[in-house]
Amino acid sequence: MSRVRTAALRWDGEGLRFRGRGGDGPEILLDGRSGHGPSPMEALLLSLAGCMGVDVVAILEKSRVPLEHLEVSVEGERAEGPPERYVRIAMRFRFEGPERDHLPRVERAVHLSAEKYCSVFHSLREDMEFSTEIELE
Amino acid sequence: MSRVRTAALRWDGEGLRFRGRGGDGPEILLDGRSGHGPSPMEALLLSLAGCMGVDVVAILEKSRVPLEHLEVSVEGERAEGPPERYVRIAMRFRFEGPERDHLPRVERAVHLSAEKYCSVFHSLREDMEFSTEIELE
Repeated sequence: MSRVRTAALRWDGEGLRFRGRGGDGPEILLDGRSGHGPSPMEALLLSLAGCMGVDVVAILEKSRVPLEHLEVSVEGERAEGPPERYVRIAMRFRFEGPERDHLPRVERAVHLSAEKYCSVFHSLREDMEFSTEIELE
Repeated sequence: MSRVRTAALRWDGEGLRFRGRGGDGPEILLDGRSGHGPSPMEALLLSLAGCMGVDVVAILEKSRVPLEHLEVSVEGERAEGPPERYVRIAMRFRFEGPERDHLPRVERAVHLSAEKYCSVFHSLREDMEFSTEIELE
């Protein structure tokens, strides 16, 4: 697979709404005012949650840990002055399916993603405060 | 406005598809295999394009430059080994509306966003190769 990814979006004069797509995939809406779709800064959190989510689902499948549902919530705190970048990101993973004795493998999957595999996480600034929390239902 | 942004997504066992939302906004689909929505790494490019797009639209409005349409295309090149993070990002801005003599103000808007305002850009690693290209229709 090529190492190049592409995306494009278009603004047609409607508020701060942008119609975008990754590659030639389906269209999504981003909205600087959040009403019609995620704002760009929310989309950044979604890309991080999705990236770690994809890793964790794949790693748990390989480790034969049963997984029915996974919820990833992310909270990002912005700096006070411009450019108001994220200075702290906290993630919470909530798993349905794994048993109590799968916990070490679940923790390992989350840490492997953050430390080694997650392409979005490693594209972010290295001086950001970052934490993860794991919850088994 | 609060300096905290939130997002959440959920996996329910369907391939690598995640249903997500920023805050309590509308739902979007991310897909690790790209078929049903942007992949997480494509979503990262979209968040960057949207962020600079929002800035540029707002700055041009303040500078009284007429703008009808704006297209932002982004290309990201990933590193070869894990975590395959972005090492190079190239952006192209295509404007409809501004006249030839608005070009300096258009260029200034793009550069102001990259250098000062874009919260997504400044949340990314600082050692990434980055370029912008501007085209007036």
